[in-house]
Amino acid sequence: MDQRPVGVFDSGVGGLSAVRELRKLLPSENIIYFGDTSRVPYGGRSPEILLKYARQDVHFLRSFDIKAILVACGTVSTTCLPILRRENDLPILGVVEPACRRAVQVTKTRRVGLIATAASVRSGAYEKCIGGLDPAVEVIAKACPLFVPLVENGRYRPGDTVIETVAREYLEPLRQTGIDTLILGCTHYPLLMDVIGSVMGPAVTLINASEEAAWDLKRALRDGGLLSPGPGGEATLYASDQPSDFRTVAQQFLREELHKPVLPVDIDRY
Amino acid sequence: MDQRPVGVFDSGVGGLSAVRELRKLLPSENIIYFGDTSRVPYGGRSPEILLKYARQDVHFLRSFDIKAILVACGTVSTTCLPILRRENDLPILGVVEPACRRAVQVTKTRRVGLIATAASVRSGAYEKCIGGLDPAVEVIAKACPLFVPLVENGRYRPGDTVIETVAREYLEPLRQTGIDTLILGCTHYPLLMDVIGSVMGPAVTLINASEEAAWDLKRALRDGGLLSPGPGGEATLYASDQPSDFRTVAQQFLREELHKPVLPVDIDRY
Repeated sequence: MDQRPVGVFDSGVGGLSAVRELRKLLPSENIIYFGDTSRVPYGGRSPEILLKYARQDVHFLRSFDIKAILVACGTVSTTCLPILRRENDLPILGVVEPACRRAVQVTKTRRVGLIATAASVRSGAYEKCIGGLDPAVEVIAKACPLFVPLVENGRYRPGDTVIETVAREYLEPLRQTGIDTLILGCTHYPLLMDVIGSVMGPAVTLINASEEAAWDLKRALRDGGLLSPGPGGEATLYASDQPSDFRTVAQQFLREELHKPVLPVDIDRY
Repeated sequence: MDQRPVGVFDSGVGGLSAVRELRKLLPSENIIYFGDTSRVPYGGRSPEILLKYARQDVHFLRSFDIKAILVACGTVSTTCLPILRRENDLPILGVVEPACRRAVQVTKTRRVGLIATAASVRSGAYEKCIGGLDPAVEVIAKACPLFVPLVENGRYRPGDTVIETVAREYLEPLRQTGIDTLILGCTHYPLLMDVIGSVMGPAVTLINASEEAAWDLKRALRDGGLLSPGPGGEATLYASDQPSDFRTVAQQFLREELHKPVLPVDIDRY
């Protein structure tokens, strides 16, 4: 039993979809979230810069007495996790591995689809991870670069012509490859579950990377005897920059109202 | 007469729409372009960081023997221009002032529309500039946050349902305010000229900020006796990062084929 909070970070607001899953799965846990909104997106950065940013993000979270970290950023999960783990004496979990593990369990056709940002697709990290788990599983990847800006502009609801047109164009060719499992490899995509599901049809299982990561964290806390005894935990949000619509967008990801202010962080100081 | 090149910079590829106008207006000039694609977008950065970036961009361009600089970045144009001018002994021109001057000349209803990124609209720079030129002119501004990602993903052509739906939603309320002039206050928007024109109708004059800036530079070079005698000049492109589709996107902005490679720059060294 351990009442210390869990730390979660991402390059921006997307990681709040993981916070949402944690709140559902682990309602007794306190959560400290940091969104590095002043330096978003991480996708196009060099490995050196990424590691510098990730270390600062961890350093900030560790300025609180936290018991574990969830790296809710696909790019950091695929590039820096081993180093961060070596440098820190607490459990650090990412979003890529849990989704891959689940996909390999679920697929029957041994053909798994992956949608993600262009940077994540280019990294080849999902293919590598799935290849390590089961070399017989084929991964068919498709970058969906417009999904993030569309979601951040509130266009994720079924019935919106714009998101539905874009989703059909991205996903229809993927559907035709005969995949039976699709990894939503970006923390923005859980908001598109309904839109993506209606293009892919009921025969394709959608894997929500944020949800799988939350399950993974739950297991890690339980196995380490680190679960909080309760009562109800709460999430405290920090961000390195807050554009005018930050609150609205954050609430869409959390699917709950924010009752406390989002606190500012000067991340260059960490 | 002066054969030295002109320097142009922007946070990314958008400024290439200004290079396109320079190539049309001043075909004898050599151009050095720098796109700070590793640190794009500039829009959300603090004034201190912006000034640091702008100084580095200028420093890089001045590592060539250039005769003038066009700041093809709306954010830098609205925040750092006076300081950059004080620190450098060559003409430095921005993209905001020329567009405002033209709008004030053109409008008869004294109601001018402005479309730009959320950061540019929030800055209030266009209102301030137009207010200084003619306090009787009212500016009605509208942020169009999805235009940049849509253009960068090749969705700017008439007939594309996605861009046409988004453009109608952004622009129809603006049209109904009775403006007769609309400033396209972002270097990405010239590619949307046709789509925007068909929503706004023939009674609204569209002001292309990149084109006005090119005219301004032409005047500055002529007045300073700095025009190149020719023969034909060429554009050399540098970028601090090159995503896989950089060439395609760059060619769309230039509306010409790139015959030379885009050269890499480690901008942190400047």
